[in-house]
Amino acid sequence: MFAPAYLDYNATTPVDARVLEAMLPWFSRRHGNASSRHEFGRAARAAIDEARTRVAAAVGASASEVVFTSGGTEASNLFIKGAAIARRTPDQRFPLIAISAVEHPSVRQPAAQLAKAGGRLREIAVDRDGRIARADFDAALAERPALISVMLANNETGVIQDVGALAECARPTRAWFHTDVVQALGKMPVDFRALSQCGVHALTLSSHKIGGPKGAGALVLDKRLELVPQIVGGGQERGLRSGTENVPAIVGFGAACALLAEQESAAVVRQADLREEVEIGVAELGAVIFGQAAKRLPNTVFFALPGVDGETLVAKLDRAGFAVASGSACSSADPEPSHVLMAMGVDPEVARGAVRVSVGRETTAKEVGDFLIALGETVFQLKRLATLAS
Amino acid sequence: MFAPAYLDYNATTPVDARVLEAMLPWFSRRHGNASSRHEFGRAARAAIDEARTRVAAAVGASASEVVFTSGGTEASNLFIKGAAIARRTPDQRFPLIAISAVEHPSVRQPAAQLAKAGGRLREIAVDRDGRIARADFDAALAERPALISVMLANNETGVIQDVGALAECARPTRAWFHTDVVQALGKMPVDFRALSQCGVHALTLSSHKIGGPKGAGALVLDKRLELVPQIVGGGQERGLRSGTENVPAIVGFGAACALLAEQESAAVVRQADLREEVEIGVAELGAVIFGQAAKRLPNTVFFALPGVDGETLVAKLDRAGFAVASGSACSSADPEPSHVLMAMGVDPEVARGAVRVSVGRETTAKEVGDFLIALGETVFQLKRLATLAS
Repeated sequence: MFAPAYLDYNATTPVDARVLEAMLPWFSRRHGNASSRHEFGRAARAAIDEARTRVAAAVGASASEVVFTSGGTEASNLFIKGAAIARRTPDQRFPLIAISAVEHPSVRQPAAQLAKAGGRLREIAVDRDGRIARADFDAALAERPALISVMLANNETGVIQDVGALAECARPTRAWFHTDVVQALGKMPVDFRALSQCGVHALTLSSHKIGGPKGAGALVLDKRLELVPQIVGGGQERGLRSGTENVPAIVGFGAACALLAEQESAAVVRQADLREEVEIGVAELGAVIFGQAAKRLPNTVFFALPGVDGETLVAKLDRAGFAVASGSACSSADPEPSHVLMAMGVDPEVARGAVRVSVGRETTAKEVGDFLIALGETVFQLKRLATLAS
Repeated sequence: MFAPAYLDYNATTPVDARVLEAMLPWFSRRHGNASSRHEFGRAARAAIDEARTRVAAAVGASASEVVFTSGGTEASNLFIKGAAIARRTPDQRFPLIAISAVEHPSVRQPAAQLAKAGGRLREIAVDRDGRIARADFDAALAERPALISVMLANNETGVIQDVGALAECARPTRAWFHTDVVQALGKMPVDFRALSQCGVHALTLSSHKIGGPKGAGALVLDKRLELVPQIVGGGQERGLRSGTENVPAIVGFGAACALLAEQESAAVVRQADLREEVEIGVAELGAVIFGQAAKRLPNTVFFALPGVDGETLVAKLDRAGFAVASGSACSSADPEPSHVLMAMGVDPEVARGAVRVSVGRETTAKEVGDFLIALGETVFQLKRLATLAS
């Protein structure tokens, strides 16, 4: 059977075979509820503890700082809402929240929801290459936000922010500083201890972006912060996230984190080479590469070919056997141009052409080569059709 | 290797081999993000749609009424909080919430959290056998709650409430009526259409209590109710629950629901026979069986042996190779006597002796027989020790 080439690792990744193997015993035979006191329960608890140590090690945190959630979206919601409720103003209103204009919807939406419920939201501008505009960041700080959230690496462009330096600047305001490292993890170093010394208080992580299973994520949290929990009940995860722990997914997340440590540098260099090839290829077709002047993740190219509609191109490439994204996966049901590109001041017409290629662990040079050939042919056909129609 | 007998199905269940097989392709190869437009994404979306149809069929709902969550606790939090926010009073306070005194912590805790944040919580009393006290239910209705939550079957005692009749009574108040059917599903018929006609608006379901995987659950919701979503972001699940869908777990949940339809009647009769045997055995040892006079789930026995501490007994049975619970798994880290038994007016001293045996699909008659022998021996030893010490 013809297997399409998967070039959409920023949307999700296949579960590594070794990760799946680590998970399997926990579905049956070792199926205990980690809150049970008997042998089945204790085995599950021990497996979660080990996974917690592995996840902590992958980001330079201590195990007691890791709060497991069902995924990155839940972790960011827990931070944004849990902190906003904890830091309500003396008249019980939600505080000012400052977030970058390029945050993922899992940060944007909870912040917007709080703003609608009486809080205030301040977006921090980015420059043409998607980097935080320092003057606007300083202006936002002057407004005294209680919470700040700036992602380490953007899911669409791959643009990396200097989160440590931003947190250092924010420190005198005593804002609680959160950074979404979902896309950064496994593609660049993430060190909570170092970030913490700069003034970062919390990270959001996701398992399914790093070869782990869907259904697990974590909030890594400075224990001095007292968040109000969002999902309450049995009191799991130190009361910060109730609900029977998803043992197989947590074990898989831990295993994926352990694999990162082994593979990171070699895999990242290889991905950077493949990304480079894609960039050269699309540039030859006349592409604009978004965020090109900024430091970016080694696996991501977000580009547009002038006059070529992104949705159409993605659909044609899909039929040719290549899976790429026209925007971030989470918002691809949304026909609006990417809010990330809008924030970068990209012309909406150009933004509508946006296509994202993101390579990963199993991507081969042949897949990238074949993709570039298919892309060239598809663009040629689309342009010819456009000429015939005009 | 010696495998302990698992008699704690109300805490969690092993994943059925056929369920796991249905899940496996979705970890790798078919690993797409259901929000992606390409082939990987469309396959994941189709798998979720099929699972939604299967879950809906298991509870007599339509697929469009099923909102997938990460589990039962999240589903109940979504209903309680999402409805309380939607039904705030004109002065923006949380409304009165009425819940039975025997609800699971996943309903009790969100209701308590709202009460602490300015809302009001009214507990509805139960009788000595754990059934809703009708006079107190009527009294609660007279206070005009905006939300009511009464579970269909209790996780500790297995006691079944006549939720349809209660909802009928509540209908004139226009309260939004929720019922947690996590423990009922697979052990007795659950029919959302019928309950809905009585005035029930929402059900909470969990996958891992019915031979499905941990990490999936659902809120089955009357579409006329507009809940405020609790986890926001990419807008998945009609905006009611954002976050990348946990495709393998959702597929597994659907497969477990499909198996229920095949097996239910025969399996339930067999479990009832095993339960009967446990009841006869513990009665011979002088046990009190909680809720004995009430209609109960066919798989659950919650009992106490006078003068025997429940925690100690569970620990000794664990060492002897039998996994049973001293209370509900979720609260077994909690040394307080069960709130369910307290609500039933059980003497705290007797409640401290409580032990729950819950059988399930893979429980054998031999396991039950061996368990009763081990229980008899353990109780004999404990009593002898008590005599020697006194």
